Amino acid sequence: MKARYELYYWPSIQGRGEFVRLAFEEAGVPYVDVSRLPAKKGGGVRAMMKLLEGGGRGLVPFAPPFLKVGDFLLGHTANILLYLGPRLGLVPDDEESRLFAHQLQLSITDFVAEIHDTHHPIASSLYYEDQKAAAKKRASLFRKERLPRFLGYFEQALARNGGAHFIGSALSYVDLSMFQVIEGLRYAFPNAMARAERSTPKLAALAAAVAARPRIAAYLASPRRLPFCEEDVFRHYPELDAKR
Amino acid sequence: MKARYELYYWPSIQGRGEFVRLAFEEAGVPYVDVSRLPAKKGGGVRAMMKLLEGGGRGLVPFAPPFLKVGDFLLGHTANILLYLGPRLGLVPDDEESRLFAHQLQLSITDFVAEIHDTHHPIASSLYYEDQKAAAKKRASLFRKERLPRFLGYFEQALARNGGAHFIGSALSYVDLSMFQVIEGLRYAFPNAMARAERSTPKLAALAAAVAARPRIAAYLASPRRLPFCEEDVFRHYPELDAKR
Repeated sequence: MKARYELYYWPSIQGRGEFVRLAFEEAGVPYVDVSRLPAKKGGGVRAMMKLLEGGGRGLVPFAPPFLKVGDFLLGHTANILLYLGPRLGLVPDDEESRLFAHQLQLSITDFVAEIHDTHHPIASSLYYEDQKAAAKKRASLFRKERLPRFLGYFEQALARNGGAHFIGSALSYVDLSMFQVIEGLRYAFPNAMARAERSTPKLAALAAAVAARPRIAAYLASPRRLPFCEEDVFRHYPELDAKR
Repeated sequence: MKARYELYYWPSIQGRGEFVRLAFEEAGVPYVDVSRLPAKKGGGVRAMMKLLEGGGRGLVPFAPPFLKVGDFLLGHTANILLYLGPRLGLVPDDEESRLFAHQLQLSITDFVAEIHDTHHPIASSLYYEDQKAAAKKRASLFRKERLPRFLGYFEQALARNGGAHFIGSALSYVDLSMFQVIEGLRYAFPNAMARAERSTPKLAALAAAVAARPRIAAYLASPRRLPFCEEDVFRHYPELDAKR
């Protein structure tokens, strides 16, 4: 019997759930995006909250996204991909490759958290408007220091592995996640990214190659792909993306 | 032949390296804390920087801490513990337990990042003194919202597993890491923790049980255990820990 994969995440944003969606989409493996189903079909946010409040078996995830397979729940994006990678054929078989893939995914996790904190440097519970001054400072140092630092690191990692893929000689979930980060950054920081991407041609080529893969292209053109927006991790606020 | 484990981390702080040190110490497995050796014995920060600059084989870690076993380098604290857990006998054998242990460790990782950002909300590259106003705001919301949220989550996870350990029926690396977080929080936020710990008796009992384990007690009393200080993740700034 085949596993039935259920993804639980906020229904109206790409967010961290998108890294998991991209893996399923590329693998062509069916999954249920539970919160996006109507409540009468067991969907909606309510079903998700019930599990987060301890309504399942075993360890309760700290926050969405989480995966449900039977009565097994698994939380943390990078942990979900660690689990799914071999099952979806999106990582090589050997332990070293899997640890390296996971290591890169954890650096992506840190990068995404820093990207989020450019617009929420004080607290996620406050509105952006109530932390705008701090956001401007944090975003300015992010653009100058952290953005080139992270992109430079990933460009180098890609180069050291031959330039086409992060892990082994075929596509892995890390390549898919990096595509998402590049896309998100281009949306959120078009000016800063135009400058930064001059030094990262391999990342740009990778992102283009991922976008051109038939299943990913079909996904991106489908209604399953939600648009970027200002309720999400990647937000475009012009005041956080100075022209110079 | 036994593996020779080398830990690379900043030599003068506990930091994120401490989670790895505690695992080795509890297991009684020898490890070399390379940066704390004199340069003429191959130690110092220089040896570490050389590897971070790409002087080794395979994937380069993004930042310390990282582990070296032969010519294999592994970065990210939680990833190092994922790798070491089975080898040090600090996690059960089955896949579900290992994924759950790693999941909890990733929540600890997030918690530690938020603790760090209470004193560095704008940028790690700036002095605390240059981001003090933002730090006060972030720390205030951390004490009110995030500290009880994380501690409450971990208390519940402990309770759901019987109360004595986070994973299975024996000590795991997650228990050791949680001890370190509790100790660090008591150092950094004595007032806020005195209030928060009224609701988390199981975490307090776990921290006491870990501290009393013979190898951990011997380690804590040894010069290998560095003191908490204001160059570290857990910092005690009275202005960030209001009495009420």
